[in-house]
Amino acid sequence: MAEPTKQTESLEKLLDKNVKGEDLAEIKRILYGKELPTLDVPESAKKLAAKYNFEIQAYQFGTIFEEQLRTPRIVRVGLIQTHIVRPTSDPLKEQREAIFDRIAKLVEAAAYCGVNIVCFQELWPYPFAFATREKQPWCEFAESAEHGPTTQFCQKLARQYNMVIVSSILERAENLEDILWNTTVIISNSGRVIGKHRKNHIPRIGDFNESHYYMEGDTGHPVFQTQFGRIAVNICFGRHHPLNWLMFGVNGAEIVFNPSATVAPLSEPLWGIEARNAAITNGYFTAAINRVGVETFPNQFSTGDGNPPHRDLKYFYGSSYMAAPDGSRTPGLSRVKDGLLVTELDLNLNRQVRDYTCFQMTQRFDLYAESLAKIVKPDYKPQIVKEN
Amino acid sequence: MAEPTKQTESLEKLLDKNVKGEDLAEIKRILYGKELPTLDVPESAKKLAAKYNFEIQAYQFGTIFEEQLRTPRIVRVGLIQTHIVRPTSDPLKEQREAIFDRIAKLVEAAAYCGVNIVCFQELWPYPFAFATREKQPWCEFAESAEHGPTTQFCQKLARQYNMVIVSSILERAENLEDILWNTTVIISNSGRVIGKHRKNHIPRIGDFNESHYYMEGDTGHPVFQTQFGRIAVNICFGRHHPLNWLMFGVNGAEIVFNPSATVAPLSEPLWGIEARNAAITNGYFTAAINRVGVETFPNQFSTGDGNPPHRDLKYFYGSSYMAAPDGSRTPGLSRVKDGLLVTELDLNLNRQVRDYTCFQMTQRFDLYAESLAKIVKPDYKPQIVKEN
Repeated sequence: MAEPTKQTESLEKLLDKNVKGEDLAEIKRILYGKELPTLDVPESAKKLAAKYNFEIQAYQFGTIFEEQLRTPRIVRVGLIQTHIVRPTSDPLKEQREAIFDRIAKLVEAAAYCGVNIVCFQELWPYPFAFATREKQPWCEFAESAEHGPTTQFCQKLARQYNMVIVSSILERAENLEDILWNTTVIISNSGRVIGKHRKNHIPRIGDFNESHYYMEGDTGHPVFQTQFGRIAVNICFGRHHPLNWLMFGVNGAEIVFNPSATVAPLSEPLWGIEARNAAITNGYFTAAINRVGVETFPNQFSTGDGNPPHRDLKYFYGSSYMAAPDGSRTPGLSRVKDGLLVTELDLNLNRQVRDYTCFQMTQRFDLYAESLAKIVKPDYKPQIVKEN
Repeated sequence: MAEPTKQTESLEKLLDKNVKGEDLAEIKRILYGKELPTLDVPESAKKLAAKYNFEIQAYQFGTIFEEQLRTPRIVRVGLIQTHIVRPTSDPLKEQREAIFDRIAKLVEAAAYCGVNIVCFQELWPYPFAFATREKQPWCEFAESAEHGPTTQFCQKLARQYNMVIVSSILERAENLEDILWNTTVIISNSGRVIGKHRKNHIPRIGDFNESHYYMEGDTGHPVFQTQFGRIAVNICFGRHHPLNWLMFGVNGAEIVFNPSATVAPLSEPLWGIEARNAAITNGYFTAAINRVGVETFPNQFSTGDGNPPHRDLKYFYGSSYMAAPDGSRTPGLSRVKDGLLVTELDLNLNRQVRDYTCFQMTQRFDLYAESLAKIVKPDYKPQIVKEN
């Protein structure tokens, strides 16, 4: 795919700059379903954003109708996208702590905005070194999901702000032969770890040869019951796999987070498609979060595409967004700047949309259970019809 | 979802009108992946289009690289979207024949453009009466897939132009108790019927209460071997169901057609998402075809949304497009006008993309075969994790 000639701030800013009035509204209707109302961002959050140079956008997803037999289930979700802070050649501990400090500012802003559940990007406390093929020093970052420094940091924030935190880390199974996993930890607003999920689908694509570091997850498709709703995590590359999205829905997820680390030439035209398709087809909210900026590493590595060895992973394009089951979505956060996206959801929308579309009832699981049982057998014969 | 205040010609025309130069290129890169080269449309086709008032757009999907061990597999695909021609109160035979006459002109233009495989919209020879809940007179349209008037008409065209025709009809199983099906017939360029596929997923949404007329298909997920490649058909509502798309891929489809009939308030923001997501995740080409215009019926019918009974299905918004496995797509045809979209594909792109992304290898069918076997059992317990 073509690379951008310059770094655009965002698709939405480009549209807003060039198109006005009715034409802009019609473009947004076709592209995004509807224009969402914005939420007021409190001055305290705005000040923090100005001081620490990050963006805040805030929107509201409503319901289709007011229900008679069920009260609204309002939740505020925060998505946070960030650059790394220090050069990747700095001591590991300093790199990680600089990111902790920065994230703390964005979480503080999220707290001012009344956020109940916050999710960070994939492997947020580290540079995304897991595409360099270098084991040392990067594997040192691996940590316990239950007791590691990142989880401890999140537990403190969770208690302080009464916020559920969805924290994606490199897990080291200290009690099981030092196996590494790409894992997301769910920390309750009480500060306790509710549980964890290990990335189900591991990429082997371009620089993202992550199978060099960790294997396919063994935790199935857990859904975590929080005080603010049932949530699940489809980690990064899993967004290309509809069955991964589907199983989280089957298990009762109301919001599925997709913490990611993905770069412009590889996936940008797919970014707006996949998490949104998942929201539509599964009748739940999805949250796509990507990191921002270029991360440059001390040593050169090769991509396997004929280009010379290089030191960076090209451009993490941010553009984090939320999508709703009715096909609507928020604008994306910046492509170039750290940011906090706040959305207020009424989780009742999920059931309202499902009752309307009936996708959950027309999906014919019996047919596909039978088909999948057949196709995993070595003697599977595809159903091919030829002219007589 | 909000209804349009006026009928826009197309999203692309709106963008082209308002945005120029680098900004336009960047918007299209983010939205569509890349700008596709256009194909020359021969004068003979242009004349026909001008005379009979339809649009022709023509694009080319290339490959990522030139292969050493395999020759290119170039195919030209035509998608045709049309209004109905006569009022729905006219005699049925006249309505159908007027559509036949019109389609013949568009197929002639497709032949001038060198099209090898052409696909029409869902239930193309009739008005989309199968949302009115009226059985009479509309069920009279139902016909034999193998010998009915529509298949005979297509056989003649197929032989005349050496073209595979993908023709979506209301099937009457004359030899099996007059059962009706929503069926797509695949007619070889030899003029013989290769086979048929019956719609797997039937909507119950808004006006589209099609389960009133026909049941879920019983033909599985057949892929049809034609002289120009292996093709399959995901009929209309099946595009909301990722497992339907998936099984056609498993069975070897290289192009999956999605003949549809869908209206603006219901699905327009989803239209660019679903068929394109399917192309990306399954590593094949997809073709989304929708009808155009408002179809008004003699008698009023109700939608079940609190609005007064009415005589039309709102606005079929055209916008037919092709999507490739690399995430790129063509612009859409007009939202308001009949049209022919010609695309030249090299089917070798599918395998090139699959070898690159490895989605086919990272999808873990064994895991999901096991999951689906469990969830169809009445005692399925969702995997929900709670705080201790």
